[in-house]
Amino acid sequence: MHSSAAKQTGFMSLMVVQIIFLALYWWFVRYDKSAMPIDVHPEGENEPETHEEEPSKYPHFQDIQVMIFVGFGFLMTFLRKYGYSATGYSLFLASLVVQWSVLIKGFFEMEDGVIHLSLENIIDADIAAAVPLISMGALLGRTTPIQLLFMALFEVALFAANEYVALHIFSICDVGGSITVHAFGAYFGLAVSLMLRPSKDQNEPGKYEGANYVSDILAMIGTLFLWIYWPSFNSVLANGTGQERAILNTYLSLAAATVTTFVLSALVSHENKLDMVHVQNSTLAGGVAVGTVCNLLIGAHGAILIGIIAGTVSVLGYRFITPFLTAKLRIHDTCGVHNLHGMPAVISAIASVIYASLAKPEQYKSDLGDIFPAMLSQPNNETTTIILGGYGREASSQAGYQLLGIGVTVLVAIVGGILAGLALKYTNFRKLQKEEHHQDELYWEVPNEQKDE
Amino acid sequence: MHSSAAKQTGFMSLMVVQIIFLALYWWFVRYDKSAMPIDVHPEGENEPETHEEEPSKYPHFQDIQVMIFVGFGFLMTFLRKYGYSATGYSLFLASLVVQWSVLIKGFFEMEDGVIHLSLENIIDADIAAAVPLISMGALLGRTTPIQLLFMALFEVALFAANEYVALHIFSICDVGGSITVHAFGAYFGLAVSLMLRPSKDQNEPGKYEGANYVSDILAMIGTLFLWIYWPSFNSVLANGTGQERAILNTYLSLAAATVTTFVLSALVSHENKLDMVHVQNSTLAGGVAVGTVCNLLIGAHGAILIGIIAGTVSVLGYRFITPFLTAKLRIHDTCGVHNLHGMPAVISAIASVIYASLAKPEQYKSDLGDIFPAMLSQPNNETTTIILGGYGREASSQAGYQLLGIGVTVLVAIVGGILAGLALKYTNFRKLQKEEHHQDELYWEVPNEQKDE
Amino acid sequence: MHSSAAKQTGFMSLMVVQIIFLALYWWFVRYDKSAMPIDVHPEGENEPETHEEEPSKYPHFQDIQVMIFVGFGFLMTFLRKYGYSATGYSLFLASLVVQWSVLIKGFFEMEDGVIHLSLENIIDADIAAAVPLISMGALLGRTTPIQLLFMALFEVALFAANEYVALHIFSICDVGGSITVHAFGAYFGLAVSLMLRPSKDQNEPGKYEGANYVSDILAMIGTLFLWIYWPSFNSVLANGTGQERAILNTYLSLAAATVTTFVLSALVSHENKLDMVHVQNSTLAGGVAVGTVCNLLIGAHGAILIGIIAGTVSVLGYRFITPFLTAKLRIHDTCGVHNLHGMPAVISAIASVIYASLAKPEQYKSDLGDIFPAMLSQPNNETTTIILGGYGREASSQAGYQLLGIGVTVLVAIVGGILAGLALKYTNFRKLQKEEHHQDELYWEVPNEQKDE
Repeated sequence: MHSSAAKQTGFMSLMVVQIIFLALYWWFVRYDKSAMPIDVHPEGENEPETHEEEPSKYPHFQDIQVMIFVGFGFLMTFLRKYGYSATGYSLFLASLVVQWSVLIKGFFEMEDGVIHLSLENIIDADIAAAVPLISMGALLGRTTPIQLLFMALFEVALFAANEYVALHIFSICDVGGSITVHAFGAYFGLAVSLMLRPSKDQNEPGKYEGANYVSDILAMIGTLFLWIYWPSFNSVLANGTGQERAILNTYLSLAAATVTTFVLSALVSHENKLDMVHVQNSTLAGGVAVGTVCNLLIGAHGAILIGIIAGTVSVLGYRFITPFLTAKLRIHDTCGVHNLHGMPAVISAIASVIYASLAKPEQYKSDLGDIFPAMLSQPNNETTTIILGGYGREASSQAGYQLLGIGVTVLVAIVGGILAGLALKYTNFRKLQKEEHHQDELYWEVPNEQKDE
Repeated sequence: MHSSAAKQTGFMSLMVVQIIFLALYWWFVRYDKSAMPIDVHPEGENEPETHEEEPSKYPHFQDIQVMIFVGFGFLMTFLRKYGYSATGYSLFLASLVVQWSVLIKGFFEMEDGVIHLSLENIIDADIAAAVPLISMGALLGRTTPIQLLFMALFEVALFAANEYVALHIFSICDVGGSITVHAFGAYFGLAVSLMLRPSKDQNEPGKYEGANYVSDILAMIGTLFLWIYWPSFNSVLANGTGQERAILNTYLSLAAATVTTFVLSALVSHENKLDMVHVQNSTLAGGVAVGTVCNLLIGAHGAILIGIIAGTVSVLGYRFITPFLTAKLRIHDTCGVHNLHGMPAVISAIASVIYASLAKPEQYKSDLGDIFPAMLSQPNNETTTIILGGYGREASSQAGYQLLGIGVTVLVAIVGGILAGLALKYTNFRKLQKEEHHQDELYWEVPNEQKDE
Repeated sequence: MHSSAAKQTGFMSLMVVQIIFLALYWWFVRYDKSAMPIDVHPEGENEPETHEEEPSKYPHFQDIQVMIFVGFGFLMTFLRKYGYSATGYSLFLASLVVQWSVLIKGFFEMEDGVIHLSLENIIDADIAAAVPLISMGALLGRTTPIQLLFMALFEVALFAANEYVALHIFSICDVGGSITVHAFGAYFGLAVSLMLRPSKDQNEPGKYEGANYVSDILAMIGTLFLWIYWPSFNSVLANGTGQERAILNTYLSLAAATVTTFVLSALVSHENKLDMVHVQNSTLAGGVAVGTVCNLLIGAHGAILIGIIAGTVSVLGYRFITPFLTAKLRIHDTCGVHNLHGMPAVISAIASVIYASLAKPEQYKSDLGDIFPAMLSQPNNETTTIILGGYGREASSQAGYQLLGIGVTVLVAIVGGILAGLALKYTNFRKLQKEEHHQDELYWEVPNEQKDE
């Protein structure tokens, strides 16, 4: 076939990337002190240091692993002829991106030219992998795997830079990553989708762009594992008593969003029937919408209120906004990431503006340095991360920075997505034709019964 | 369609429930001390308290989350045309019930009009969600979601009351919840089913009441995750050295029940072929049957013996008792919860009578206060829960209370289930017709290929 | 049917095995001290001992549970008419084997005629269950469940003996079990397969030996959970700082193997299309290939290099070696365990020879006693396991022992597999005919729609 040469070149170039990664790891990456043997007879009074904090994050890490590999992978199996790609490309993409993320985020924090590798880095890497997986949801079925993976490499680098600015320069709170991860991934993906938009005469839905009965149930595997482990995602980077609040608030927000989703889905749908698209996606909007503020003192009622709002906005988004974007702007969004990640992330950012403006140091006490380090009156000596803070920032000022954070993130994501989309469209990548969309067969050996279908 | 108005009213009323929950949380629920920031410079000698116990239960909690949302949800996907409902309604129901459970259980334990929210509450909430999910198994495919959810709200309130009586007044041991959760959920569901029983001329099996090849494999997702994480369910509320025993005994009992199930299934089935219904369900009976006694000193052999008995009773139940109940009493039990939850829970209660009658304080030592607080000679000062105990109760007396516990629980469940069934039948709820049973189409948008089938 | 009597005898004999297990547990097994109540008022100065180590391994244990029961079970559902057997027999086999493993491994380590049962034993039991599950992969669809289970009982006993020799006599390092678990399971299974090889005129592929679209996606459930939790499998027995290295190295090796697998799969396949067999299996080869050395000081680059090699060898194995073995030697290997477990395990052993030869006590410091106990200059007093070491062994000598370890393991596995195969073939077991291969129907009640297919 004439496309084999393009495929070969594409896959070969990804192998080159993998080998470059090997070289970069050889050069730059060393085990962190926590992963290095310790002296048996330490000199002086120093007892062998015990690394208590890291082990306790391992269960959280494993929960996030399930979200990234099973959660995202299966959530995208809802397309009836794209299940190999959904589970396969998400695995491929995440495996490439986690290696890249350790490097790129490491370059921002390296000491003496060395990236120190510990459990923390691979937690961060899994979180970073969520970003291009979100964007992949917007584009699902309309790119080749080669396009997707090169897009992901660029996107993660830009994500790391934006996250650095948001967290370390603006010093915003965003423990669950709604701003830096979800908003970024969603708007980047939508911007790429805008660039890849079909011509007006090709704007009808794809022939295979739909679910069947089994693929819809398989997608629920993804939904449910994302739902279950979302409290771990939102709380993994929280410290102090904020970690328990992050767990509690995420759980309640998800529960409220889920109830709201079912009710709204029945109310706005044809014949008042429930819609699996809403159930698979909008039930999770509560996890996104509470992400930025989940370790704040929002109260259980705050979490539930956010969940209700998120479920409402998300279902209405699927029902009204996505069809509008597709029909009028020709921005296709296969999984509706705008409704699951984009708008709920903006809700979370707005909530963070409100709660930050109300924050008082005397309320946050021991947690102030972890949540709003810039509001500390002096730098926290005990802090071991790069966030030093201690600017004595006012609550109203912190609220302004939260607003700046979401604004800059959305802007960077859109500009980055436009650039990435231009590159995917106008450079040498093999592109998919309309009739090649949403089906595995072009890139996968598919059993015959499927071909006959 | 004429049924749309009924649907709208039903779903709207659930939204009202959600909003009432929001108000109740606003009024009554506050973060527990463990989830509140602590003073940076504590006065006097008090060091910042470390909350060591709760974090260690978080992995247990996440395991239970998988059981509730994936385990129950997928176990019920075995019906070939009811997979959206199985995974969807279980998510919907659990999301509503966990919010309700925090409130209702909180009302029993509130201090100064405040419900203190911590990880413990949401662990309890997940456990409480299991109760109506078990009952849902009995009724699967024969109620509307609206009926199911209102039933669940009533059931959980009654469950909380009964549990309070059993644990805090009778002071029974039931760490894995076989009595308070499994027996209650099963007999409540069966009593509802009795009330909703078909007329004699409609007592044949439903047209869609069966599995197909894929739906049976999907159900194994549920079975396997329930199996895997059952030791976490049974051990999460155990303390002291009893937690490790709970893990070990549950694991061994499950393993023995599984081997027994496969053997018995082959021996009693047509042409000695294995039956997926047994494999999906009876393999789990070992987890139920060991629940009440899993932290007792039953020995590894005790656990294995209980597992063998449970597997045997459960398979024979599916083979002989369920068909009898259906044919003679017209009590339909779609998932056979009587065989997976009901009878094994009674076995567990009987085991607890036997082991309690043999219990000696000098054997249980440090664990006595956690397992049999009423047998302590004086109240345990260190205990932080509401269980004070210290009545110097004799072993024989404790055995009697165990018997009382299961008796009262089954009675309350049956009376409650009858009341709930009457309400579902004779009040204004829209009911399903025979031909509407066991299929998604009435309440879900279903892809066309399914309709054609 | 004429085969019913054979089935009955087979299943009955497994029930006898279960009852013998019950007796052996009654006789030999007692809770370990860690699972026994402690004195409330300890005499003298001894505080109640806290068992800190074990609880921290519980999350690891639960991850491994998912691998054994969901991972292996679903990985084998790829055959389109063998899904009940894949998920069912793996559950049946594991449930029987874990009970047996506690006994058989306990007999090697018992004190005063008592096997002390703690969390450690059931972690070991789950790991032991992996061994016959790997062999089952080689034989999938070509044995009866009775043959499979009796094979597993023999295999696990032989595995325990070989492991004892490798770890406690040769004192090799093998923390992730690539030598003792993966190589053993793979070569044992291949040897059984050799004994059961078809006659030359029956050497064509089985009629049902293939996947369909849904079964291939279901198999990805297995792949992804194995991938996700592999770091837990490899690190569960590691101690000290080696545990974090085991996690990091396994993660990176898996990621690199995955990228390599996708690239190689596209490059060597027909029309450069990706092959689900490779994606389901070779992506995991990185976990096997790093297993033996994952807690060594191999560096992040070492882990990535091993992953690249493993992915390459595994895909090429599926593409070229498996067809050769099938066609020329008539060794069928249904899941390709030689490519996923066999060759990657040999790679891991070779890596261990290299890294052991470079090991310096002054590098491994506090971890030397855990990783290379034989290289200690004197026995480690603090060690509580049976591995005493302290022979002052040289690095070059350790390297030699690593080589001896893999050599003896492969030899024992092959001889054992030949004996087991002879027993399965020439004793009284009912055997499957060619046309009975790879389909559930002979041993399972299958819904009609499947029969019609």
